[in-house]
Amino acid sequence: MADNGLSYATLDHERMTRTGFPEVIFCPGKTDGQIASIAASIANRSPLMLATRASEGAFRAVQAQLPDATYDATARIIAWHREALPKVGSVAVVSAGTSDGPVAAEASVALACMGNHVSEVHDVGIAGLHRVLAHCELLRTANVIVAVAGMDGALPAVIAGLTTKPVIATPTSVGYGASFDGLAALLAMLNACPGGVAVVNIDNGFGAACIASRINHAVAAAAEAPLNAG
Amino acid sequence: MADNGLSYATLDHERMTRTGFPEVIFCPGKTDGQIASIAASIANRSPLMLATRASEGAFRAVQAQLPDATYDATARIIAWHREALPKVGSVAVVSAGTSDGPVAAEASVALACMGNHVSEVHDVGIAGLHRVLAHCELLRTANVIVAVAGMDGALPAVIAGLTTKPVIATPTSVGYGASFDGLAALLAMLNACPGGVAVVNIDNGFGAACIASRINHAVAAAAEAPLNAG
Amino acid sequence: MADNGLSYATLDHERMTRTGFPEVIFCPGKTDGQIASIAASIANRSPLMLATRASEGAFRAVQAQLPDATYDATARIIAWHREALPKVGSVAVVSAGTSDGPVAAEASVALACMGNHVSEVHDVGIAGLHRVLAHCELLRTANVIVAVAGMDGALPAVIAGLTTKPVIATPTSVGYGASFDGLAALLAMLNACPGGVAVVNIDNGFGAACIASRINHAVAAAAEAPLNAG
Amino acid sequence: MADNGLSYATLDHERMTRTGFPEVIFCPGKTDGQIASIAASIANRSPLMLATRASEGAFRAVQAQLPDATYDATARIIAWHREALPKVGSVAVVSAGTSDGPVAAEASVALACMGNHVSEVHDVGIAGLHRVLAHCELLRTANVIVAVAGMDGALPAVIAGLTTKPVIATPTSVGYGASFDGLAALLAMLNACPGGVAVVNIDNGFGAACIASRINHAVAAAAEAPLNAG
Amino acid sequence: MADNGLSYATLDHERMTRTGFPEVIFCPGKTDGQIASIAASIANRSPLMLATRASEGAFRAVQAQLPDATYDATARIIAWHREALPKVGSVAVVSAGTSDGPVAAEASVALACMGNHVSEVHDVGIAGLHRVLAHCELLRTANVIVAVAGMDGALPAVIAGLTTKPVIATPTSVGYGASFDGLAALLAMLNACPGGVAVVNIDNGFGAACIASRINHAVAAAAEAPLNAG
Amino acid sequence: MADNGLSYATLDHERMTRTGFPEVIFCPGKTDGQIASIAASIANRSPLMLATRASEGAFRAVQAQLPDATYDATARIIAWHREALPKVGSVAVVSAGTSDGPVAAEASVALACMGNHVSEVHDVGIAGLHRVLAHCELLRTANVIVAVAGMDGALPAVIAGLTTKPVIATPTSVGYGASFDGLAALLAMLNACPGGVAVVNIDNGFGAACIASRINHAVAAAAEAPLNAG
Amino acid sequence: MADNGLSYATLDHERMTRTGFPEVIFCPGKTDGQIASIAASIANRSPLMLATRASEGAFRAVQAQLPDATYDATARIIAWHREALPKVGSVAVVSAGTSDGPVAAEASVALACMGNHVSEVHDVGIAGLHRVLAHCELLRTANVIVAVAGMDGALPAVIAGLTTKPVIATPTSVGYGASFDGLAALLAMLNACPGGVAVVNIDNGFGAACIASRINHAVAAAAEAPLNAG
Amino acid sequence: MADNGLSYATLDHERMTRTGFPEVIFCPGKTDGQIASIAASIANRSPLMLATRASEGAFRAVQAQLPDATYDATARIIAWHREALPKVGSVAVVSAGTSDGPVAAEASVALACMGNHVSEVHDVGIAGLHRVLAHCELLRTANVIVAVAGMDGALPAVIAGLTTKPVIATPTSVGYGASFDGLAALLAMLNACPGGVAVVNIDNGFGAACIASRINHAVAAAAEAPLNAG
Repeated sequence: MADNGLSYATLDHERMTRTGFPEVIFCPGKTDGQIASIAASIANRSPLMLATRASEGAFRAVQAQLPDATYDATARIIAWHREALPKVGSVAVVSAGTSDGPVAAEASVALACMGNHVSEVHDVGIAGLHRVLAHCELLRTANVIVAVAGMDGALPAVIAGLTTKPVIATPTSVGYGASFDGLAALLAMLNACPGGVAVVNIDNGFGAACIASRINHAVAAAAEAPLNAG
Repeated sequence: MADNGLSYATLDHERMTRTGFPEVIFCPGKTDGQIASIAASIANRSPLMLATRASEGAFRAVQAQLPDATYDATARIIAWHREALPKVGSVAVVSAGTSDGPVAAEASVALACMGNHVSEVHDVGIAGLHRVLAHCELLRTANVIVAVAGMDGALPAVIAGLTTKPVIATPTSVGYGASFDGLAALLAMLNACPGGVAVVNIDNGFGAACIASRINHAVAAAAEAPLNAG
Repeated sequence: MADNGLSYATLDHERMTRTGFPEVIFCPGKTDGQIASIAASIANRSPLMLATRASEGAFRAVQAQLPDATYDATARIIAWHREALPKVGSVAVVSAGTSDGPVAAEASVALACMGNHVSEVHDVGIAGLHRVLAHCELLRTANVIVAVAGMDGALPAVIAGLTTKPVIATPTSVGYGASFDGLAALLAMLNACPGGVAVVNIDNGFGAACIASRINHAVAAAAEAPLNAG
Repeated sequence: MADNGLSYATLDHERMTRTGFPEVIFCPGKTDGQIASIAASIANRSPLMLATRASEGAFRAVQAQLPDATYDATARIIAWHREALPKVGSVAVVSAGTSDGPVAAEASVALACMGNHVSEVHDVGIAGLHRVLAHCELLRTANVIVAVAGMDGALPAVIAGLTTKPVIATPTSVGYGASFDGLAALLAMLNACPGGVAVVNIDNGFGAACIASRINHAVAAAAEAPLNAG
Repeated sequence: MADNGLSYATLDHERMTRTGFPEVIFCPGKTDGQIASIAASIANRSPLMLATRASEGAFRAVQAQLPDATYDATARIIAWHREALPKVGSVAVVSAGTSDGPVAAEASVALACMGNHVSEVHDVGIAGLHRVLAHCELLRTANVIVAVAGMDGALPAVIAGLTTKPVIATPTSVGYGASFDGLAALLAMLNACPGGVAVVNIDNGFGAACIASRINHAVAAAAEAPLNAG
Repeated sequence: MADNGLSYATLDHERMTRTGFPEVIFCPGKTDGQIASIAASIANRSPLMLATRASEGAFRAVQAQLPDATYDATARIIAWHREALPKVGSVAVVSAGTSDGPVAAEASVALACMGNHVSEVHDVGIAGLHRVLAHCELLRTANVIVAVAGMDGALPAVIAGLTTKPVIATPTSVGYGASFDGLAALLAMLNACPGGVAVVNIDNGFGAACIASRINHAVAAAAEAPLNAG
Repeated sequence: MADNGLSYATLDHERMTRTGFPEVIFCPGKTDGQIASIAASIANRSPLMLATRASEGAFRAVQAQLPDATYDATARIIAWHREALPKVGSVAVVSAGTSDGPVAAEASVALACMGNHVSEVHDVGIAGLHRVLAHCELLRTANVIVAVAGMDGALPAVIAGLTTKPVIATPTSVGYGASFDGLAALLAMLNACPGGVAVVNIDNGFGAACIASRINHAVAAAAEAPLNAG
Repeated sequence: MADNGLSYATLDHERMTRTGFPEVIFCPGKTDGQIASIAASIANRSPLMLATRASEGAFRAVQAQLPDATYDATARIIAWHREALPKVGSVAVVSAGTSDGPVAAEASVALACMGNHVSEVHDVGIAGLHRVLAHCELLRTANVIVAVAGMDGALPAVIAGLTTKPVIATPTSVGYGASFDGLAALLAMLNACPGGVAVVNIDNGFGAACIASRINHAVAAAAEAPLNAG
């Protein structure tokens, strides 16, 4: 039923033209074999291939098909490029606590794969405000900021009060009890008092990277072709 | 059935001895007449009477029975004292936004009625951190801080990171949409990263006053009779 | 306690420098008199003043202080400028149904006040896909798209699949029953399959405008000063 | 207590006459031995036997009693027929992503067992609208469409806007974070803007098959005996 | 921006061809004037016009434009036909209690407008099973059954156990307390034990009518042209 | 701190006098050793000892202390009696499906231990009404009925419509998706249309037994000493 | 369609025989006229008629048909008897606070109408335990206790620890914020630690009366005819 | 990026000065190696180090770096002190059931580490009120009470009615079904009728210890330096 010879997947090979990025493989619910076959099919037609929430087993299956594929175990991302994308602009990825690291890593690794310069700042939660205040310069010069936090989810609001740049709030499931697996952080971020914050799904580092990359590329493109955007 | 001649209420006249404060009238669901009768019965046996969430109509009904009763329209509290309680210690009531004012007022008025010195700081939400940072001295010298906020509910956590004193977080229903009438603020406060925060019910300025008064009186009592508490 | 002579508000007059926009008045929970006083105080020091969720009564109170203030009854926004901001870039505001109009209007009016060129497309929900497909050119040339929808909340995901630009999804409380006042749309948008979507609070047209304006201004600034951003 | 010699089950052997289909075994919470005994008892009196959410262990236990039973590991269905039912009409089963495959398979396998012609289309989620648009002809000629999707749950609404046929929306638990195990997709489907959609429980491919089969059989019966239905 | 001269609506005049029914006006959130203008525009190009959740005021505004429009105050539907649709097939609308009447009426009136023969049975909730059992013949001969219930929502499951026909379960917000405005009935219906049930949104009598009409028309069409559907 | 030599438990040895039944051990969260020690301490002073939600390991630990203890693996109850209680009255335990068996068993075994005559009827869910209708005589002669069901939770309401006796509705977590681990059944039961139903916690067979036993004993006591109760 | 000449209601006149009590009119969602007609129809065939959640307007409409009908404004119950039922047994209705009064009144009035002796105790919430402890004798001699409470919902658990009789816990919507209109009390009651508690819907005083009456009548019947029940 | 040579953590070494307690390691989501490195870094600069929710594996990793570290397996806390803190004041930790033990232990161990005298009372839930009443003297003389309970969460409210001291309510996830992992207890505590209660997150024994320690130290400090606090 699908034109690529896979009975379980209808690949969307034109997505790169339409949206600036090829289809990405979301691994949960797919077998390692399915992941490897879809990866090979994407790599056949696109200059890059990304698989998120990937296990080491999935990576080994992909590697058998695409020997140049790489794997970041913290970010759980398998990546393959025909040739590396040039990096543009500037995205800051800021996280509240060490436990938020894997989600921040998913955002950072995906942003790098998508051709963005990335700066990372970790463990600057609001329990010690001086930690985030020490990075004001970075927050003001990045084109967009990805702010990752669990528990009270207060970091993006604090950052939005310190900068004029868009803040992509990324709640994590770090916490327990009435954090309800990240719901508390999600709601706090949706209700952030300062303007300039929008929110992605819980633990969705990749989703934060997608919109941050779109913003950063829009800015970078304007810098290259200023007549169209200003 | 009740020893006070009221068929709809069994007053708890010993509560002042047992808990340090007499029974308080929670007005919603009671008629103005019921409120006035209960108020008169309490005033008959206790040195003070408080009614919360009271309308102006309830106040007029109480006033007909207790001409010295007073009413704070913002706090919606009716109060009556045989003689004013001496004020002790120091409680800070801090609110995030002007819309949180009625809940902060309920806390402040109740604290004053309960015999506490109260300092108020308003409209110092986290959108402009310098506003709360300007009050660090107060936050460090009060015996206890009542922190009132709606929307993202981040203020108590920020305050707890700036002081060694207990913080009573008071969520308000200020907000809309995914604030879910204060649920977002409540959850954020329950998940506050810094230690030193405990939470009362949404819009429960009176409840915040109750525990803050207990803390402040415990501290003040220790200052008066240091041998028992240290 | 506040340096501006208002006992119920601590204005944040430096916010414009810090975040590119002055403090905005969120009207619910404030009296008309409070709104007018805060508005006058902001206008005294800032080049513009905005009040959201404002009633006609609040407008009349503000107008008594600031005769040049204007009111958009659909958007429920009171605005006052010392002089109009120059408009830059391009933001598209797209709504799914006529009932979503007030939220879309809040976003459009706020964006215009913040100095953004705005294009509006209304009533292009997914029940008739050809309606949104007819606007692909606009979706691809705007610097950022605000997509407003209630009920199934599917419009932002469909738009994100058609463009490379960032999409700010804005759920509305339009619907009934299991829409749970916009929760269904909010969750659908947070789970949008295509990348490039971030979400603001339910009915939060103003919040959508804030982040869209930050993005659009970042792009426009890059077009003016390409060396810093690319 | 039960007339079939099973102490833990009261079989409903008349259900086929009453509802057109015999009782089906829902395996979770039953031991393999219980499943096999109930299966044998049903097969004793009915022309077919189905067990859903069945493990391989349950299949082996059933096979020991009914050697002709078959097992579909993706759909997790054990089936046994005295003789295959003739297939009638036409049902389309359409899924949004590869991860939705098991639920779509449960629907497809059950539909085939119930005597329906089935067409399957997979991986046509709304991130690339052209994928589903390519199947419009099928959507318009099937008697009923089962539309399976997780995450944003937008596929059934899009399909309902493209056809005059009834759409049985089947949410899946595919997703993470604020998908809340399929709740987001369920709510989105219940709020689908276009008419013509009704919804079954999350991951309930079998339930979708039941109602789709009833619809398809009603249509097919009308084609055979047109006087009663038109 | 819209080709029909309405700035707030983009009408979908091809919907009748594509889905068998023209666009319907959902009145909440629209002014009476907007409703009347949209109604006139639809009536200009389509053979029928429906507006749901309509107030009497909206009806009077529509009537000024379309004098032949009719209004059912229980169903809250405004209808206008260039000429009445011929009625086909058979749909049963069954409700559990008198309080469910308005939702059942919305379904019945909409079904009649859409050209379906409708039979109504009211007040046959499960507290007295004999009431629904008395209608078994009707339940078995209708092409599809719309089952409307609030509170425990058990009626559709009971009906599905008595017939081979598809059951469209329609939860209502009738109830109080832990009915949570129809959530209890909605969940009960999604978890109905017998197969053959699918569910629409709470109080969505119109949505139930839409899918029931699609089913009934598919059956009736097969009776007219048996070769295509069987 | 405890008078029984256990540092982790303050036993309530007077509970039998006060409430008619000794303290029962709820095993989850306790180690096998703790369970055995508490069991021995209870057995030392009470004529019977019950432990619920008990694993086989817990049973072996108890048996080492109380060799006469017995274990029902389906009900997960450890029981020990100094001498068996005489059985009185009549309680019916009715379950909807085979998967509800363990909860029904917990109720039945506990009721027997508490000295009640118990009749069991299983697998009589509403998908086939004739199954429960066949037991009307039993439902009308028992002193109280425990009705156990998951999924749609409709069985207790149906039973309450068939009898004059009190019905203790016991929801189970049997189901999937939007059953939300028994929430759907719980809500349906709380909203049961017929009078005469009260509800216990999800999967709480023991709790159902407690109140049913109190009711049955009250009836039986009245039969023995009719002057006090009638 | 209905044998009683009412098009909107199918009365269940045999219910009294089957369940010991005739059908009761739940007024919300019904017009005053509908209520009066149904009341007259019930009174025509049954010895008593009850309507709950009734407004004064509904009462006046009923009174025009049944001049002997009575109305309790606190309980919001309209009652009519051909002749008063003899009263049997003993039910205690206990409420935690004055604001819970209307729900307790609904239970008490309904119980009296159903032929039960009722004792009432009000305003004995757990803030002052001595208030409820003073009524232990009553709690131990009633055949069944209806315990009504909002807010923390702790009263039924405390009562169940003091008596051997069944406790029907009745949560009320009294409270605010995180009481979520009675959800907090409902959940607390479902999780009551002591055995012997079962729960009815929030604010469902009538439902509590129904099951309490069934229990009390079962006990009273056993006292009259001891051979059948013990 | 961090000044301590750890790439994944920005330690907040000034926190002890600012808040009276150094940063504490929340272990979930961190590897044993990360925990050990952070622990060593904290111990390098602070007089004490605490890690909560720690596994035995984490303890062994920390012990390799800090041989004097200790581990409480029930409380799951790793502690290290350069020298033990002097203990002051008096905190009571009271728990409702044996299953609540680990949360109570987390509170007790943390309080001891923070330099507080601690008294523990266990298993005094409200099913037997005499158990908690036996400890009234302790409840009245402690400076603050930590009350730990799952299920119905009623213990803190009962305690607050018996004392004038502040009560820190600590809900646990002990329970099942509609306890929703501690949500029932959390809500009950937030709605406690008596004043004087504030609440921490579910299972958050450490958080309860933090605020209780702040309160106890404030009281103890006042006893030492009475002039500032009274």
